Amino acid sequence: MKVLVINCGSSSLKYQLIDSETEEVLAKGLCERIGIDGRLTHKPEGKDKVVIDAAMPTHTAAVSLVLKELTDKENGVISSLDEIGAVGHRVVHGGEKFACSTLLTDEVLKAIEECNDLAPLHNPANLIGINACKELMPGVPMVGVFDTAFHQTMPKKAYLYGLPYEYYTKYGVRRYGFHGTSHSFVSKRAIELLGGKAEGTRIVVCHLGNGASVCAVKDGKSIDTSMGLTPLEGLVMGTRSGDIDPAIIEFIAQKENLTLSEVMNVLNKKSGVEGLSGIGSDFRDLENAANEGNEQARTTQEVFSYRVAKYVGAYAAAMGGVDAVVFTAGIGENDSVIRKLVGEHLAFLGIKIDDEKNNCRGVERIISTDDSKALAILIPTNEELAIARETVALVK
Amino acid sequence: MKVLVINCGSSSLKYQLIDSETEEVLAKGLCERIGIDGRLTHKPEGKDKVVIDAAMPTHTAAVSLVLKELTDKENGVISSLDEIGAVGHRVVHGGEKFACSTLLTDEVLKAIEECNDLAPLHNPANLIGINACKELMPGVPMVGVFDTAFHQTMPKKAYLYGLPYEYYTKYGVRRYGFHGTSHSFVSKRAIELLGGKAEGTRIVVCHLGNGASVCAVKDGKSIDTSMGLTPLEGLVMGTRSGDIDPAIIEFIAQKENLTLSEVMNVLNKKSGVEGLSGIGSDFRDLENAANEGNEQARTTQEVFSYRVAKYVGAYAAAMGGVDAVVFTAGIGENDSVIRKLVGEHLAFLGIKIDDEKNNCRGVERIISTDDSKALAILIPTNEELAIARETVALVK
Repeated sequence: MKVLVINCGSSSLKYQLIDSETEEVLAKGLCERIGIDGRLTHKPEGKDKVVIDAAMPTHTAAVSLVLKELTDKENGVISSLDEIGAVGHRVVHGGEKFACSTLLTDEVLKAIEECNDLAPLHNPANLIGINACKELMPGVPMVGVFDTAFHQTMPKKAYLYGLPYEYYTKYGVRRYGFHGTSHSFVSKRAIELLGGKAEGTRIVVCHLGNGASVCAVKDGKSIDTSMGLTPLEGLVMGTRSGDIDPAIIEFIAQKENLTLSEVMNVLNKKSGVEGLSGIGSDFRDLENAANEGNEQARTTQEVFSYRVAKYVGAYAAAMGGVDAVVFTAGIGENDSVIRKLVGEHLAFLGIKIDDEKNNCRGVERIISTDDSKALAILIPTNEELAIARETVALVK
Repeated sequence: MKVLVINCGSSSLKYQLIDSETEEVLAKGLCERIGIDGRLTHKPEGKDKVVIDAAMPTHTAAVSLVLKELTDKENGVISSLDEIGAVGHRVVHGGEKFACSTLLTDEVLKAIEECNDLAPLHNPANLIGINACKELMPGVPMVGVFDTAFHQTMPKKAYLYGLPYEYYTKYGVRRYGFHGTSHSFVSKRAIELLGGKAEGTRIVVCHLGNGASVCAVKDGKSIDTSMGLTPLEGLVMGTRSGDIDPAIIEFIAQKENLTLSEVMNVLNKKSGVEGLSGIGSDFRDLENAANEGNEQARTTQEVFSYRVAKYVGAYAAAMGGVDAVVFTAGIGENDSVIRKLVGEHLAFLGIKIDDEKNNCRGVERIISTDDSKALAILIPTNEELAIARETVALVK
């Protein structure tokens, strides 16, 4: 079956068409500036990328252009839309309603809408993308795959904050966690590498991208994760602060004469690696600067890695030990320096990074020494493939 | 030498008179409702407590009454103020200016005042108490002992947040940590129990009181701690939230129609164990309720303990392992259930709590099993004695 995977934002839309039998990506691309002007970047497998400037007043117009390109004589990869057996949609927030992927019935869409409150920037955009696809592909089954679903197995002690309990019962204030599709995908692969049986395994997945989170996966299930009610909590990220003393918000609001919402904007968009380093959020720039003697850049790498290592230690306590620590996503897959800095803290768990094995990018590889008691593994993530798999599992 | 130890708040003042040779407490007490009406509770060693309602329009008036009682024919313990060799003052925030206790010269008092910004509720009150004592005991050396000083050995990777760097350089936004006097006192004792040599030791101190914090002490030095810019960060506390997703603040402000400062008030005074349990912040009530089948109470104990255990794990990563985990302060010394719940997560560090040994309150005792690779120890803290010791060290 050919599955179209859609990740729809407020003014952008990413897609991949995946053959679920071969798991090959037939085409992928990106619509940008939806509602503004519009640009489609389309890359058919084995052919050159095409960039098309075309009006995209609505998401429906954007999806329509994507479908046109997918079936285009020149740049297309299928001869008719009938070949698309299902559409898998990334949905950011499923609240407590969705512990797994689900067919997008009208009832389900209503339930997703009820989660809008928890992800006001993301869920409405996801829904717009779903509705655009429903309109243009009537009869094709649509599946929602939630960033939060994998973490719904967390116990209360992990998901409740030290807040008035009625904030949880009235407003759903609790830890939800994100990147669930990636954590699930990567931990499943790690379990295969550990022998294939989920039971008894204790895995920490470090999904280190521009957004970054750590997840404790015990017996194949998420039991804790570093992102919380929103994707702001946890690790120091590209531009997000991650964990801070909550009192800092008021302190900064007063010092800088900012409103609460302005401070939140700083915490989300001007903090993290970018804010701390003063260089930017690209870890390659950071490493280059550090190598040229920029101390601030080196310190930023250390702050970032130290926070990751502390989460690994915390989750070792949560699971009673660790069998494997997995690095994934942009930084996790490509930045050997960061992996090394994290690894230096993990000897007490029986993990020692092998410098030679660690000297790699974007490949699946065990990077701990042969005599390590627990494994450090690099496993490339693939959220689109994970969404396609989830989608096929529900429609076939 | 006899040392008067003063802990001065905005409307209260606690004191102890300690004989530094015998380390005996000669008298202790509390002034309450300073500036409102005034009440002095005075307890001379070996005699009954006396409660005196007396006008305390100012802190100077309060100190004056304390000195009067200390030298009183009936309730006094010294015959003349000349017997007081020094006064040790607790000072909450020393910023980056004070890495150790110091004689309170005019210059030092000015430097403490410059830290007021970082502890607007505490430092000004501490200064008022210092000035009152200076006025009434001219010529008696005064020493400031800072809650933050012990943590000034933290490395940058531990004290920097993922925030714009200029917040640190301009406003001093960083992790400072508190309870330093206790963490220092207790870790010193733990080092003695580990053989007496600080070098090579890795100790996690869990100071669990109404305010609570965890500290990683490596080679006798604090290298990380859970409280941050303010004492709000870290563990779930009696009424404080500890760590939350920073985005929760805006979420709650909108939902409950609260100002930022009102939300901060909730996080400081209506959250934590009290907010989550709905019972209160007293851990004995929590345990009683849990035993009567109150699930919410049991969950609160679990949330509290789980957070402590995760910090222990994180600090194991920070130090490359752990030789001893120490429990101290009100809950740490007296609540065997909490110690047990924390301990259940620490088997991976080679720590196993011995239920029989753990069945105790307020005594110094190793509570891990004999075959544990690392120790769990109960060590009662004594911040007043620690302040007296620091004071004597500086004045003799």
